[in-house]
Amino acid sequence: FDQLDDLSINTIRTLAADVVRKANSGHPGAPMGCAPMAHVLYRGYVMANPANPKWPNRDRFVMSNGHACVLQYILLHLLGYNMTMGDLQAFRQVDSKTPGHPESHMTEGIEVTTGPLGQGFGNAVGLAMAQAHLAAIFNKPGYELFTNYTYVITGDGCLQEGVACEAASLAGHLQLGNLIILYDDNHVSIDGDTDVSFTEDVVKRFEGYGWHTQVVADGDSDLDGIAAAIENARKIKDKPSIIKIRTTIGIGSKNEGTEKVHGSPLHQDDIVEVKKKFGFDPEKHFHVPSSVYEYYAQIRERGAKAEARWNKLLEDYSAEYPQLAAEIKRRFAGELPKNWESHLPRYTPSDPPIATRKLSENVLNCIADVLPELIGGSADLTGSNLTRWKTAVDFQPDSTGIGKYSGRYVRYGVREHGMAAAMNGLTAYGGFIPFGGTFLNFISYALGAVRLSALSSFRVLYIMTHDSIGLGEDGPTHQPIETVAGLRALPNILIFRPADGNEVSGAYLSAIKNISRPSVLSLTRQNLPHLEGSSIEKTLKGGYVLREAPDAHITLTGTGSEVSIAVDAAKLLTAEGIKARIVSLPSFELFEEQDEEYRSSVFPDGIPVLSVEALSTFGWSRYAHVSIGMKTFGTSGPYKEVYKKYGLTPENVADKAKKTIEFYKTHPLNSVIHRPF
Amino acid sequence: FDQLDDLSINTIRTLAADVVRKANSGHPGAPMGCAPMAHVLYRGYVMANPANPKWPNRDRFVMSNGHACVLQYILLHLLGYNMTMGDLQAFRQVDSKTPGHPESHMTEGIEVTTGPLGQGFGNAVGLAMAQAHLAAIFNKPGYELFTNYTYVITGDGCLQEGVACEAASLAGHLQLGNLIILYDDNHVSIDGDTDVSFTEDVVKRFEGYGWHTQVVADGDSDLDGIAAAIENARKIKDKPSIIKIRTTIGIGSKNEGTEKVHGSPLHQDDIVEVKKKFGFDPEKHFHVPSSVYEYYAQIRERGAKAEARWNKLLEDYSAEYPQLAAEIKRRFAGELPKNWESHLPRYTPSDPPIATRKLSENVLNCIADVLPELIGGSADLTGSNLTRWKTAVDFQPDSTGIGKYSGRYVRYGVREHGMAAAMNGLTAYGGFIPFGGTFLNFISYALGAVRLSALSSFRVLYIMTHDSIGLGEDGPTHQPIETVAGLRALPNILIFRPADGNEVSGAYLSAIKNISRPSVLSLTRQNLPHLEGSSIEKTLKGGYVLREAPDAHITLTGTGSEVSIAVDAAKLLTAEGIKARIVSLPSFELFEEQDEEYRSSVFPDGIPVLSVEALSTFGWSRYAHVSIGMKTFGTSGPYKEVYKKYGLTPENVADKAKKTIEFYKTHPLNSVIHRPF
Ligand SMILES: [Ca+2]
Ligand SMILES: [Ca+2]
Repeated sequence: FDQLDDLSINTIRTLAADVVRKANSGHPGAPMGCAPMAHVLYRGYVMANPANPKWPNRDRFVMSNGHACVLQYILLHLLGYNMTMGDLQAFRQVDSKTPGHPESHMTEGIEVTTGPLGQGFGNAVGLAMAQAHLAAIFNKPGYELFTNYTYVITGDGCLQEGVACEAASLAGHLQLGNLIILYDDNHVSIDGDTDVSFTEDVVKRFEGYGWHTQVVADGDSDLDGIAAAIENARKIKDKPSIIKIRTTIGIGSKNEGTEKVHGSPLHQDDIVEVKKKFGFDPEKHFHVPSSVYEYYAQIRERGAKAEARWNKLLEDYSAEYPQLAAEIKRRFAGELPKNWESHLPRYTPSDPPIATRKLSENVLNCIADVLPELIGGSADLTGSNLTRWKTAVDFQPDSTGIGKYSGRYVRYGVREHGMAAAMNGLTAYGGFIPFGGTFLNFISYALGAVRLSALSSFRVLYIMTHDSIGLGEDGPTHQPIETVAGLRALPNILIFRPADGNEVSGAYLSAIKNISRPSVLSLTRQNLPHLEGSSIEKTLKGGYVLREAPDAHITLTGTGSEVSIAVDAAKLLTAEGIKARIVSLPSFELFEEQDEEYRSSVFPDGIPVLSVEALSTFGWSRYAHVSIGMKTFGTSGPYKEVYKKYGLTPENVADKAKKTIEFYKTHPLNSVIHRPF
Repeated sequence: FDQLDDLSINTIRTLAADVVRKANSGHPGAPMGCAPMAHVLYRGYVMANPANPKWPNRDRFVMSNGHACVLQYILLHLLGYNMTMGDLQAFRQVDSKTPGHPESHMTEGIEVTTGPLGQGFGNAVGLAMAQAHLAAIFNKPGYELFTNYTYVITGDGCLQEGVACEAASLAGHLQLGNLIILYDDNHVSIDGDTDVSFTEDVVKRFEGYGWHTQVVADGDSDLDGIAAAIENARKIKDKPSIIKIRTTIGIGSKNEGTEKVHGSPLHQDDIVEVKKKFGFDPEKHFHVPSSVYEYYAQIRERGAKAEARWNKLLEDYSAEYPQLAAEIKRRFAGELPKNWESHLPRYTPSDPPIATRKLSENVLNCIADVLPELIGGSADLTGSNLTRWKTAVDFQPDSTGIGKYSGRYVRYGVREHGMAAAMNGLTAYGGFIPFGGTFLNFISYALGAVRLSALSSFRVLYIMTHDSIGLGEDGPTHQPIETVAGLRALPNILIFRPADGNEVSGAYLSAIKNISRPSVLSLTRQNLPHLEGSSIEKTLKGGYVLREAPDAHITLTGTGSEVSIAVDAAKLLTAEGIKARIVSLPSFELFEEQDEEYRSSVFPDGIPVLSVEALSTFGWSRYAHVSIGMKTFGTSGPYKEVYKKYGLTPENVADKAKKTIEFYKTHPLNSVIHRPF
């Protein structure tokens, strides 16, 4: 390392101060403190091609402390990604590609969306799992196609978060040797010195997880020490690595080393002093010395050459392993195998009743072998979620003898949040469709990552079973009430609560075809009948008329396990001469996307709508004039008794339907579809 | 230890098998495996009085692996709590006091509601914090009033959960010496041997957290070893303790030591063999030898005497420290100090605009000193959440020199989920009103514990700031969209989104007076004006007419930061001769509890309702015919520009109001209040 390295580092530091100052908002401290480790990392190790940010075997870089994204944006700029100085100057402005925390769908070269602490760490574990798996599947002697590293910078905040703790334990178990974490140990968090709340021995904790650990005492200037530690970490192939690097947050500022430089711009006169200290002209703003641009151009060039070599390797590989090569290309293009959907099972009403979680297992058994990009598992509820298909092999280090890296069934352990974050990482890598299971209620443990699946436009499948009070005896601690409402309120995610076999198949079809949003499949523990009138195709519309009734008095609507209750209620009403239509509404979101004509054919004006769903009624006013559902927590007991306790019976639905019809004879009845805007 | 101890342990084991078998549902394995540690713990150490389960200085026992609650119920039965053999036989039946997972509000002697893994561990940290604080406040030389231990049994599952990891790190930092964890190391989780996913060195990890650690190699029969470890742990006063105890899950069953005995009843013939193995008559069901009842009666007697001694101590203390004694009695009776609410600030429209997070700080500054039971902090966002009042002292071990155990401001670190679980524990202890802050968006990290605040009927205050896209530059990773909808769908919790100073004071008043439910205060980063027509008293109704307009054309309604936008929109409409009423709706839940007459006076029939809220519109159809709000994620930028981008402006509201009025001239307009049932 020489003066040019120092110059580069100080360029990053002063530029970070300028960018945050101009935005009048942001976090200068961590970018300034992490500049040395980031520079050493990119100068010596990160292999990526700015001209093709999606090269499959690029090294992945994750800024888990996403508030330090100015550092990432500056690196992208210096490396020649699609990131101009103007973009840096538009930091934190509406519709810029430099938002306040990095968003992978907004900015080329950003691998994952970070900022919510701990998420990037969890994503990185998924990225490293992806590399290990693809290497096991595709690498051949002489053709080391998937060899990339996943590098992470993380701060104190991420390491305190449960999601990162879960992911770290999983990564140690999985022996992910190509995962290397640089821990920015700056001894500061927002509340001040880490002494106020974070005094554990992080290195010892990670040793407990089975990680390789190192310490660099002076991360502000010991570039050789940082480089040596990264070199060592790269050599360790059976353990993930963490390097604790002691740094000074906001180095150069008069408030360096304190929380004052964390979350607000440096004062203008402080920036002047910083620039002087680092030998920069304080009159120059957004200044990058040409030698630094040239230096980074070399890094860019090295990356471009690396990709060219890889492309040549893939070409040779294609000659020797044409099918495997075609698979790599197909998967990284995001294309699905032809006719995969023809494997989806279909059912008729004469098929025996069956739980939708079991129907989900049927789907997995039918499609897992034709969709090799499916990789999934459960947070230690395999036998309950029914997420393991017949031919599955566990994803485990080969040395364990209980699975292989080429396996696709992931034993996530009791780590819902870590699982969801890892699935985001698997998606971000490219070439995967990850899924993960737990009880629907416990998606609440993972919501921090679920919302990032949605924000990032990541296709992740959440297979959530035991989806209501219908789980019975486990009781209210396990019975979701509010869960689906919260998910329905989340943008860019599909929530499916399928009513029978065809709807389960339809939900999978839609979830897999929607390449830029996640899906939640809400599935029952209890058996359900197959319904007359259901189909895969109708399910794709989100809502449809399961049973029409001319001159109907009422529309009964519901989802999942309650649709068959509505059907039975309609029979009771028919016996009394009352005509009820039935609408199944497996996905609010897809239904909203249908045109107004279709939607008003499903919910015609002038007919009152009564909904029934064994979940919170909150949100149903969108479609129903009145609702049957849960307004309290549930109770522990055999599920049929629990259903009865809360009025989720054909008898009660029929009774309430009559009250509804009677009421609206004398009250105005608005359209649930037609609206003023 | 002698044969009577073995007999007691085997009684628990066989009884557990019978209870689960009769319910035909439940978890026999862990109760059987944990019987020795539980027996040793209760026989020798747990000091509690079954006749008064709420004795303040009782030792707290937490079964963090709540699925093993049969063990707890059996112990309660043997000890003579309000738990009959008939109650055990009603295990997992509707409305029994023996639900499938333990619920503190259902069953005397259950300290906290567990089952969702990791929560009990986090609660225990809160329980231990409570003891440390009350000891520091109330203990005097010769009067060791608060000395209790918090004992926990936990399994592999809990230790994998992020919430427990966060809480463990915090407990180590806080040096909670009276917290003792018995780790049921049975090497099994639902997916099978822990080798498939959980291979870390737990002891080393906890050493990293700063805990005292011990190992008992044979937890099935080495009762002396278990006792010695507990003795040692009790002596360690500056560190929490974990004792790893190797056990055999479902010991005695033909499937012992495997996941097969985890979550379903043992087969009848297996139970026969278990009973024979343990020297019990297989023909006898639900059998407790009288010698075992007598043995446990001694434990009960010991506990009753301990409480009697304590009551005498408190009596003597009352003579010497009458005010402190009165405070203890007041706080454990759950009574608030007289006239505390007179300290709540009130505002007029001439007061300068101010952010509701700052108004929340004002409230804390006014009430913290008059409500010594308030104990709170932030998940490392103190300066942003504004949760620290002027006179606050940090809750820290006195030896650190940066606070004291008598302090009430908690530095939770970046541990949202651990914070929420600890707050549940603080509430469970009695005598506290805990509050905790983070950004509203990151309550999603803590929802697992938030829903247990609600289910447990625990008064916990969630001070959630930066409550919409109004946080601006931090961008969509930090901007809540779905969050409030999900919370509104949760039973038994109050969500407040106050619009100004009086509503903030009203929200605090309501949150503190509602002793059996938690509250979420959703607060702005940005400044808001004080509104003409707001008041503390009106806020308590959840919704009220802020501004009436005779012969109104439309009702504009909203919450929090959007109420003032609606007021400005009404002014624009007035200029065009259109009359708009304004309804502020700070709490849906409280509004729902008002009578129909009041509610229909707020939302009269025949007037269309347009809502505006800078959050997901999901759920607003309950009150509004049409809604302005968010249907996508937000964006990073200065907040006024972000508001404009999404139409959250007086101009757009006025424009949409006109469209709404026009539309409903020719369309039926239902009542949002009057419903058929
Ligand atoms: Ca830090
Ligand atoms: Ca276990």
